[in-house]
Amino acid sequence: MTINIPASVGMPVEEVDTPCLLVDLDAFDRNIDTMAGFMKKHGLRHRAHAKTHKSSDIAIIQVERGGAVGVCCQKVSEAEALVSAGVRDVLVSNQVVTPKKIERLAALATRARVLVCVDDLGNVDDLSAAAQKYGVTIECLVEMDVGAGRCGVRPGADAVALARKIDAAPGLKFAGLQAYQGKAQHVHDFEDRRGLIDKAVGMVRDTVELLKAEGLTCDIIAGAGTGSYYFEGDSGVYNELQCGSYIFMDADYQRVKDDKGGFIGEFDNALFIYTTVMSKTKTDRAICDAGLKAQSVDSGLPVIFGRDDVTYIGASDEHGVISDPDNKLRLGDKLKLVPGHCDPTVNVHDWYVGIRNGRVEALWPVTARGMCL
Amino acid sequence: MTINIPASVGMPVEEVDTPCLLVDLDAFDRNIDTMAGFMKKHGLRHRAHAKTHKSSDIAIIQVERGGAVGVCCQKVSEAEALVSAGVRDVLVSNQVVTPKKIERLAALATRARVLVCVDDLGNVDDLSAAAQKYGVTIECLVEMDVGAGRCGVRPGADAVALARKIDAAPGLKFAGLQAYQGKAQHVHDFEDRRGLIDKAVGMVRDTVELLKAEGLTCDIIAGAGTGSYYFEGDSGVYNELQCGSYIFMDADYQRVKDDKGGFIGEFDNALFIYTTVMSKTKTDRAICDAGLKAQSVDSGLPVIFGRDDVTYIGASDEHGVISDPDNKLRLGDKLKLVPGHCDPTVNVHDWYVGIRNGRVEALWPVTARGMCL
Repeated sequence: MTINIPASVGMPVEEVDTPCLLVDLDAFDRNIDTMAGFMKKHGLRHRAHAKTHKSSDIAIIQVERGGAVGVCCQKVSEAEALVSAGVRDVLVSNQVVTPKKIERLAALATRARVLVCVDDLGNVDDLSAAAQKYGVTIECLVEMDVGAGRCGVRPGADAVALARKIDAAPGLKFAGLQAYQGKAQHVHDFEDRRGLIDKAVGMVRDTVELLKAEGLTCDIIAGAGTGSYYFEGDSGVYNELQCGSYIFMDADYQRVKDDKGGFIGEFDNALFIYTTVMSKTKTDRAICDAGLKAQSVDSGLPVIFGRDDVTYIGASDEHGVISDPDNKLRLGDKLKLVPGHCDPTVNVHDWYVGIRNGRVEALWPVTARGMCL
Repeated sequence: MTINIPASVGMPVEEVDTPCLLVDLDAFDRNIDTMAGFMKKHGLRHRAHAKTHKSSDIAIIQVERGGAVGVCCQKVSEAEALVSAGVRDVLVSNQVVTPKKIERLAALATRARVLVCVDDLGNVDDLSAAAQKYGVTIECLVEMDVGAGRCGVRPGADAVALARKIDAAPGLKFAGLQAYQGKAQHVHDFEDRRGLIDKAVGMVRDTVELLKAEGLTCDIIAGAGTGSYYFEGDSGVYNELQCGSYIFMDADYQRVKDDKGGFIGEFDNALFIYTTVMSKTKTDRAICDAGLKAQSVDSGLPVIFGRDDVTYIGASDEHGVISDPDNKLRLGDKLKLVPGHCDPTVNVHDWYVGIRNGRVEALWPVTARGMCL
């Protein structure tokens, strides 16, 4: 982390070393404010998803400027890194099932408010034992599968049985429901996306009623992402939303459409992979220095920002192939790439280089880079 | 790097934390010995490609046990990390074109033998100026595009002109040709692969003759990878091969066929992503803890090692979806995944956990992890 810093504060952007992550700080601030405005207007809590950025600097901005109640993490190690950097309210929005990780989660709860998702009855016993060992309370959300086909119990009776067990377990507090429809986020058509969330909302509403009949209150009814938050926000059921990608946006989210058939436009591109043309031996193509080790291409190739004359058409380990039909590019030219998928792209970098007015204003480490344990 | 070490030496493999990289040290040693035997038998030099592993421990094993003359790196920062760890002969098998990186390359040549690839006449002037500034010699290979369509000048006259300029430049030494046919490596059919390499060999042979007529000798005629090294090795033209993936193998290389229509079998799977089942709420699927942040899926999804009853069918940021039609898996079960593509998978991890006889024998840092500058 201490070597290979691609920039220094005050440097003109053209001098920043590549490949690296650039953050357009004006766009970033607008994204923070837009989401904060939505949450305030709708009387919702925002628990920003830190898996997108893995940065303590950004997490703290989301809380202090953006009004978030805290953050979500996907891994205990990610949560540890952010708590160590000053974040005090963390939901591990995932299952924690192995003995070592459960022990670390309980230890973390001595230093911060810690919540976790649960989808297994046996896991309740293990979490309870660890919480008692450390003399802490771990707040548990029952995770339900509301259509994503991934983690989570079935809504209804299974969720109620799990909530009842958590409620009775020493050291644990039943805090509510986790009902994230991850599959809906990138469904491009607006009405298709709405339909998936409507189904999820129905399942959540029914389960909340069943829980209420058992005397179990859901302080937190959580879910939603950048592709669907307005649906959950308007549902009258969800009260804590977990958007992450809104701060950066990525090429795949920009293929998601709004209710008028246009692309969702309330957030701006704030994250780029900065890259240099490193080989130009052909008139119709150029090779840049950002390949598979500077980004993840799981959701498609990056889009070259602000240029319609050149196209990123292929990636190998350390090279990107750029189609340059009009022979516009020259050796040393720099380009900004909008990543296909922000979250795993951020995970291969150590630094964010924050830019405003053409100069470096901030250098933020990717605090929890690589923390997958 | 100092936190989140997934194992300790002596630990049984079952206790290793997940997700992490496991190295089967017996298979790894066999791969090292097999490649060393081939090179010795054919009187070839091996310059092992360190971009595959980014590890100083492995680079040193490749030199000391495997007889390699040195290593290839793709980035100056990768070369710096390995030189700092004791490697003394490094080819940056790539173009280095920006002022800061050229300066660092020259500075590195004060501490180790440093070679670099060149495909631009102007770049020769810049490299020469930096070499003179540091009082060093940088050895330059003329990179030719022999069919990959990426970096490199055209074989023939363009290559000769570049070689002549390097030869005349103070501080530089014309050391030979880089002629890597990267596109051929993963062509599954044996004869198709041979055809592509035969074409490359022809271009190299012709250019070597042209250079000879100008009084320019190629000490090094370099290229080849794990999918094609026997072709270049038999060519009578190439003398320095640059295989990397052979030490680990990956799922995509195992779809490459040999001359009998079977899969290439001289190397064993030595690298795995170790993963735990973290959610099991459905009879026909399981969710494991290795998703897009524990691997790169650019060349396809991983294959579950040693199991034909379960299949890895989908990856999201921190989850893998496993088809489990016979409901065999249980919460906490561990699996070994063969990565779809080793190189960018290694780049998201900080540690290799070396296993022999079911116990942890070695912990190797991924020395140059994330070093893309």
